[in-house]
Amino acid sequence: MKVALAQLNYTIGDFDGNKQKIISGIERARNEGADLVVFSELSVTGYYPHDLLEKKEFIQKAETVVQEIAASCRGIAAIIGAPRINTNDRGKQLFNAAFFMADGQIQYIQDKTLLPTYDIFDEYRHFEPNRTFGIAEYKGERFAITICEDLWDELPTANEFGKDKLYQVSPMEELVKFSPGFVVNLSASPFSYNQEEWRQNVLVNKARKYGVPILYVNQVGAHTELIFDGGSVFINEKGAIVSELKYFEEDFRIIDTKSENAVDLQPETDTIEKIYNALILGIKDYFRKMGFKKATLGLSGGIDSAITLVLAERALGAENLRVLLMPSKYSSDHSVADAVQLAENLNVQYDVVPIQEPVDAFEKTLSPLFEGTSPDITEENIQARARGIFLMAISNKFGHILLNTTNKSECAVGYGTLYGDMNGGLAVLGDVYKTDIFKMARWINREKEIIPENTILKPPSAELRPNQKDTDSLPDYPVLDGILFRYIELNLSPAEIAADGYDPAVVNRVIKMVNTNEYKRFQAAPILRVSSKAFGFGRKMPLVARY
Amino acid sequence: MKVALAQLNYTIGDFDGNKQKIISGIERARNEGADLVVFSELSVTGYYPHDLLEKKEFIQKAETVVQEIAASCRGIAAIIGAPRINTNDRGKQLFNAAFFMADGQIQYIQDKTLLPTYDIFDEYRHFEPNRTFGIAEYKGERFAITICEDLWDELPTANEFGKDKLYQVSPMEELVKFSPGFVVNLSASPFSYNQEEWRQNVLVNKARKYGVPILYVNQVGAHTELIFDGGSVFINEKGAIVSELKYFEEDFRIIDTKSENAVDLQPETDTIEKIYNALILGIKDYFRKMGFKKATLGLSGGIDSAITLVLAERALGAENLRVLLMPSKYSSDHSVADAVQLAENLNVQYDVVPIQEPVDAFEKTLSPLFEGTSPDITEENIQARARGIFLMAISNKFGHILLNTTNKSECAVGYGTLYGDMNGGLAVLGDVYKTDIFKMARWINREKEIIPENTILKPPSAELRPNQKDTDSLPDYPVLDGILFRYIELNLSPAEIAADGYDPAVVNRVIKMVNTNEYKRFQAAPILRVSSKAFGFGRKMPLVARY
Repeated sequence: MKVALAQLNYTIGDFDGNKQKIISGIERARNEGADLVVFSELSVTGYYPHDLLEKKEFIQKAETVVQEIAASCRGIAAIIGAPRINTNDRGKQLFNAAFFMADGQIQYIQDKTLLPTYDIFDEYRHFEPNRTFGIAEYKGERFAITICEDLWDELPTANEFGKDKLYQVSPMEELVKFSPGFVVNLSASPFSYNQEEWRQNVLVNKARKYGVPILYVNQVGAHTELIFDGGSVFINEKGAIVSELKYFEEDFRIIDTKSENAVDLQPETDTIEKIYNALILGIKDYFRKMGFKKATLGLSGGIDSAITLVLAERALGAENLRVLLMPSKYSSDHSVADAVQLAENLNVQYDVVPIQEPVDAFEKTLSPLFEGTSPDITEENIQARARGIFLMAISNKFGHILLNTTNKSECAVGYGTLYGDMNGGLAVLGDVYKTDIFKMARWINREKEIIPENTILKPPSAELRPNQKDTDSLPDYPVLDGILFRYIELNLSPAEIAADGYDPAVVNRVIKMVNTNEYKRFQAAPILRVSSKAFGFGRKMPLVARY
Repeated sequence: MKVALAQLNYTIGDFDGNKQKIISGIERARNEGADLVVFSELSVTGYYPHDLLEKKEFIQKAETVVQEIAASCRGIAAIIGAPRINTNDRGKQLFNAAFFMADGQIQYIQDKTLLPTYDIFDEYRHFEPNRTFGIAEYKGERFAITICEDLWDELPTANEFGKDKLYQVSPMEELVKFSPGFVVNLSASPFSYNQEEWRQNVLVNKARKYGVPILYVNQVGAHTELIFDGGSVFINEKGAIVSELKYFEEDFRIIDTKSENAVDLQPETDTIEKIYNALILGIKDYFRKMGFKKATLGLSGGIDSAITLVLAERALGAENLRVLLMPSKYSSDHSVADAVQLAENLNVQYDVVPIQEPVDAFEKTLSPLFEGTSPDITEENIQARARGIFLMAISNKFGHILLNTTNKSECAVGYGTLYGDMNGGLAVLGDVYKTDIFKMARWINREKEIIPENTILKPPSAELRPNQKDTDSLPDYPVLDGILFRYIELNLSPAEIAADGYDPAVVNRVIKMVNTNEYKRFQAAPILRVSSKAFGFGRKMPLVARY
């Protein structure tokens, strides 16, 4: 059977737009000779609509669109994803469903069985799990339909007291009883640089274990924090990847479920390049889907704002960017020169806005209240916050969205000023450790110097007091990031981290910084997620706690 | 049987403190002649620890504390709540368990069956649901143990396509098969002014339906946004409330499970007084459990900051408060006079800090960039953000936590400045509509004028431009709040709201304001929750969406 994999970029709640994409996909598949076309999980609504799923009119619109698509589906079959109302006596209001349609009608519905409710997933909040299994048939071919997590029944849980099997049911065990010719999987699996390979392995192992070909269609595109990377695949019954679609862009391909050898894969890319591509898509879709075009940011001459600007230029175009250089009396000359050089390399409009006058005005007004006190973090924060005001003024006056430039290392230990350099509509680098930032700078400069060499080489500094260096208050970044990765991504205990060769005193100091800065992260901008554990709604820590 | 209800205020993750409270409770119950003492849900860890439950060392500490408490439990029986590891082959790592202990040992464990995963609840993220039922026995008396939601199996879901029964199982149906003499319920049920009565009704109906007495022990105290109100009750088998513990404070009472008539209830309080008491507890526990004492806020002469100051004074004491009056050239004379009057009425330290100098400095520095533009929201926001900088400077220099004074009506429609008047560690009034703010002012002034009459009477204004009034950009507050309540708390559609007598154009305008300001609320301070639907983690809306 000829099956089209339609890897598309949906917008949450944009029923007209999503419907149009799906109907065009059906037409294209029919024109190109496919028997069946498969779309991704919740393609009608976009993944994930969160509590919009609690709105009756939202569900009614989704139902209408499903009916309209079914009516238009003639001369070909299609499988689309949408929520549907649970009409049983008991249970949650909705199922997360896959609709198999042909001849202008819905022919079969398979609901999702395994509802992930960990990390960034929250599906049990809205959906009732499926308990019945069946098979779809078209043109004499029988195939089973699964939705994303349904193939992840052997998912190991993330820590040591975890079990082999997170779920009570194995949908594949149930479905193979129907002897399907192939298995379709409608997916919405977000990118994370340290889980991508693992995801393909799960699919390969399933195909091999059950001796059945798997067609995996993933969503592509970003929704606020989450970046869906595509990479849909067709895997044959021996577990070989026969066809692999593009990453980080829409793609469409027709495969023959009987084909064995036509290996058609994507080129290998390294981790930093993947993160780079993911972040560009993240920025691009945030702006496009929100209806924005223009961005601003504060260019300090440091490496974080430099990388953010390069990514923004790739995503939005230089003509849509306008940045501010905001030197204070503690800014070094080379900082301004480096920032100017970068803006000119990228052909981005910049203005130099010195912050000294408002900073002096704050300090003068506060001087009667601060009599007898010494300068401390207060005065440093006033500088960072004055910069925040300038950037938001540009944003308010000219409509540029402020991009936040905080990296994951800073975000983890609270090395940043709330309502100052933590401002922004979107945190581009908030899930990228500083050591990876340096690697990305080298990767960006691999052919020619875009980011000034001096920006990469000089010791990181916030430049909020004379001769300040990040290392005055933080361990060296390789040590800091090593501890943070083990604590955040790997969820190791302090003792386990120390056992990996880190000074226990430093480990405890770093962990304490992470824990006591939950309150800052609570008010941080949404962070583009590229790792297996990002700050944000996938990591829910209590603010008020003694631990 | 004589059973003590121990309604205590735990701190999340404070294992030593919580253990000490529980052991003291056991000793007191024994000394006062009780046979059994019951504590609330997850009393060992505090409710709710969120992703701390994913940390192995957190679970190990909880297990150790459970063993220590069991060892100390002699001459009396006790029931406490704690997480425990799921040792089955499949399923999530933990159960949410109740441990029945006597004679120095754990005698019986009953795990929680119904795991709420709606609104602010997220228990399915961490816990496997219980599937087996049994009964505890002590001194010849048999009793069933349930945990919070286990009695809520008939919970109607919140919208019209909902079902009668959210869950597949009814724990009470299973437990009554064992003919218990009474049913214990360990609870952690947060306060919401429009659900409190409903909660007691559920308990009363269960007791009556099954003809069995119910002992309900709730947690008291606040954890960041959530305020647990206590109000533990003993209900006899006829469904009469025989004994009711205090609201918003710790309480301890011994009841006889055979007693019928000894009605011992709390005085009726009206809704506004309940909200007032809830907010004071919310502030008090935020500060106490975080280890803070002192607070600051900006006193504008308006009603929101006035109420916030009154609540803070009740929670923290006047000696721990220091407020700023920050007039601009648009501030009316009476605003300053009203603010001074309130500070003096409450005996709170205040400073007058005019914002004009830094505001002028910003505008002067920006003037080359802003050439040819007209004043707009940009200049208004600069004022609000300059005030934010002053308040954070006081906070940074002297250690006062900034209280945010935004009300729910403003928060809903985005009538506030991000990084300006939206700043703060805790949003005290973010779940209280403006119309209720006025009622609370009247209630506070019921015996004498604490809040200046002029603050209550004058039309609300942000005073960011000459003669500005809130009603320039918003509908009158009774109309606005009527629409917001229907949209947010009742989850009605625009058509349904209009059918309640609101102008459809106004309804659409208000709803659009709510939807397009998700990005601001994303970065808002934690909001003390007092309603059935507060902004924050109980209302998850996608930021990037077209709907």
